Amino acid sequence: MTRVPQPAWRQIANPFTPIEVVEPEQLERIHDASMRILENFGLEILNAEALDILAAHGAAVDRANSRVRLDRGLVLEHVAKAPHSFTLHARNPAHDLRIGENNINFILTSGPPNCADLDRGRRPGNFADLSNFIRLAQCLNILHGLVGFPIAPIDVPVPTRHLDGHYLHTTLTDKIWGPSCIGAERVVDGFEISRLSRGLDEAEMRRRPGLASVVNTNSPLRVDGPMLDGLMTMARLGQCVIVTPFTLAGAMSPITLAGALAQQNAEALGVIAFLQMVAPGAPCIYGGFTSNVDMKSGAPAFGTPEFARAALAGGQLARRYGLPYRSSNCCSANVVDAQAAYESQMAIWGSVMGYSNYLLHSVGWLEGGLVASFEKAILDAEMLQDMAAMLMPLPGGVDPAVLDWRQGRRHDDDEPPAQQRANRVWKQLLAEYEAPFLEPARREAIEDYIARRKSEGGVKAA
Amino acid sequence: MTRVPQPAWRQIANPFTPIEVVEPEQLERIHDASMRILENFGLEILNAEALDILAAHGAAVDRANSRVRLDRGLVLEHVAKAPHSFTLHARNPAHDLRIGENNINFILTSGPPNCADLDRGRRPGNFADLSNFIRLAQCLNILHGLVGFPIAPIDVPVPTRHLDGHYLHTTLTDKIWGPSCIGAERVVDGFEISRLSRGLDEAEMRRRPGLASVVNTNSPLRVDGPMLDGLMTMARLGQCVIVTPFTLAGAMSPITLAGALAQQNAEALGVIAFLQMVAPGAPCIYGGFTSNVDMKSGAPAFGTPEFARAALAGGQLARRYGLPYRSSNCCSANVVDAQAAYESQMAIWGSVMGYSNYLLHSVGWLEGGLVASFEKAILDAEMLQDMAAMLMPLPGGVDPAVLDWRQGRRHDDDEPPAQQRANRVWKQLLAEYEAPFLEPARREAIEDYIARRKSEGGVKAA
Repeated sequence: MTRVPQPAWRQIANPFTPIEVVEPEQLERIHDASMRILENFGLEILNAEALDILAAHGAAVDRANSRVRLDRGLVLEHVAKAPHSFTLHARNPAHDLRIGENNINFILTSGPPNCADLDRGRRPGNFADLSNFIRLAQCLNILHGLVGFPIAPIDVPVPTRHLDGHYLHTTLTDKIWGPSCIGAERVVDGFEISRLSRGLDEAEMRRRPGLASVVNTNSPLRVDGPMLDGLMTMARLGQCVIVTPFTLAGAMSPITLAGALAQQNAEALGVIAFLQMVAPGAPCIYGGFTSNVDMKSGAPAFGTPEFARAALAGGQLARRYGLPYRSSNCCSANVVDAQAAYESQMAIWGSVMGYSNYLLHSVGWLEGGLVASFEKAILDAEMLQDMAAMLMPLPGGVDPAVLDWRQGRRHDDDEPPAQQRANRVWKQLLAEYEAPFLEPARREAIEDYIARRKSEGGVKAA
Repeated sequence: MTRVPQPAWRQIANPFTPIEVVEPEQLERIHDASMRILENFGLEILNAEALDILAAHGAAVDRANSRVRLDRGLVLEHVAKAPHSFTLHARNPAHDLRIGENNINFILTSGPPNCADLDRGRRPGNFADLSNFIRLAQCLNILHGLVGFPIAPIDVPVPTRHLDGHYLHTTLTDKIWGPSCIGAERVVDGFEISRLSRGLDEAEMRRRPGLASVVNTNSPLRVDGPMLDGLMTMARLGQCVIVTPFTLAGAMSPITLAGALAQQNAEALGVIAFLQMVAPGAPCIYGGFTSNVDMKSGAPAFGTPEFARAALAGGQLARRYGLPYRSSNCCSANVVDAQAAYESQMAIWGSVMGYSNYLLHSVGWLEGGLVASFEKAILDAEMLQDMAAMLMPLPGGVDPAVLDWRQGRRHDDDEPPAQQRANRVWKQLLAEYEAPFLEPARREAIEDYIARRKSEGGVKAA
């Protein structure tokens, strides 16, 4: 059996002018509304040290209510210190990523508590499936990086779970990743383990960031204490924070898209300004995760027209402030069917045409994020390969490996439907998987570090 | 049971700047190459009357080889006479369509020899299924019009098949349609039947066109005799011709996309210039149907990155000449699975973002065009509803009926996958179908006309 054919790993850039869903005046109105939110309502900041830093930089801090109001001048002054673009350094320099401008990076799904495949069905997240999903991420050339856990391994103890995860992140893949930002300890462990895997000293690791982590605000307008500890630590260590409000129009945000975007913008800029107070010049990404809810069930709706419009508009806002931009490939479908594909295509097109620099959940997301699906991962990879080919300069044409991938599936009655074909492909990829080389001394150093931290009991605080 | 909820019928416009996949200099190179094709190779025109017309207008006609070479000045002079935009008048004026500029119209699939649904599987086209497909087209508010036959009714005799079809077009639906252009007789019958259904005299029917028909050139660079008879008749009767070369890169066209586009452009502009010689000011649409072939099987590949890029580039070419533009929603998938959806999304996004004014095969196309699928029709309608919602001005938001359509399908284990849900929806739509009102006198006139034409034997020539 020949290996699964696929195009070579490469950085992808969008050659087209971004689609602008918001008129310039509307964009200014959203900007103005978000500034008024920060000036008049402010953010709830549940962390004493963060409040001190904000007060020292001139924010109006109401300690009794943990509330911080920020003048627009103060916000914009600090947001302007964030770099417009930067490089995220992978353990394998061939997998370094340019973040910003028209560069597009596809990042594995992160966060699902469950996993699923056609053979074994849906099941709670576990360490063996997590390991396989990370192996699959390494195999898929179209995928640029990882962050957090694609599947929560609930069979591993919480205090040391992140250590086991980071061991996988440094041994099973050589692409970029990022630790959980819940508390400072996990961030420090992630920093140290990544540093050891790259053979760097601490100063070099700060200068050449390799970790990028997602921080969700507790919308509306709140950032919790452990999260603030984590993101301050990331910034001080020079690593990248992706600030992503989770603003569902009609749930934790106003029902209109413009209103939800104003809230998203207030939360994202407020936290990015704070990060720049903590560590001026620290790499940040402006994250958008605005969507609508199904007004019948109250469930978040993904891959909808609103989702695509919010992805396009979020890119416009990020560009307004010269910040790199993150959005997502999400769907609401429960199975890897036509709905899963068309919702994901809405999200991918909206994100890519909005100049998303960091497309989270690029691969594997199913069931509104409750499941990481092995078959969906293959389907997503196919769609992303097509998108990457679509973005190539015209004389270049399409990489023939994209077509090879689908060998024989056209007008061939013997060929199974997409979901069954995807099942075959991920199993073959895992069978072909080879761990990327890691210098034995580095591996040993990582193992020693993890053993020591485990003997200390791992994370002490919540 | 409540009726299937759906957004109201409306005209759709693209508020975004079109995506340009071809740089301005590249576009000029494609233009120049196409002009050189017409000047140096010319078109094979298999019709004596057409050759006379072309000669009379100054084209270089080689009668021995039925070959016509056209100077670029001559081509552009006549192409400039085609209207930039126009209205196609439906029997029901509420279903009139604006063609041109940033208007987008979704047109039913046309041409599949077979049909399929989950209950009865795949079967040859037949009159009963054709009737149901036209009823479904009438039911789907997102669908703007029809053309030709969505399913070939092979159980109906060929000489009078078009008469039976046009009876369905004027009684089961009140949206726009178009006759086959194979020979003058079918066009005249279509004109008369449409005229009677609208209660117009001949002059009024010419002034207010209601028919739009697709003409495929016999690529490479040939137009056959009956087709020329048909399209000359359409133009003389003031009706709209959609000139669509079928240029598959690597089959009947050069392997590069730029080469295939140059050939498409030569064929489309050559025929449109000819139509304007026949009837200056006759409404025309520039059609693009360029794609690639699967280099393993030789089968046409649809919904690929190349297909989307060709759709975008075709729009740029059409705009260069001030012509309305047609492209397609095609896929290669054999079943209504994830592949069908993601290929169709590539085609829809490429077409819509390229400002396609007339999106043929919007609804129902499956298996590379060999099958019209009832479930795919519903899936396509969902995708088009989403696209239409995405294109609404930002303050407008999404029509809630789009979500109603998918009632309960999110995070609901009882809800079947998309294909089974689609099966339920099209059957419910057909159960709810009501024929649009047609004045009894008009229906009688149509029936008399058809009875007379049948008694004459229908179409005499091939």
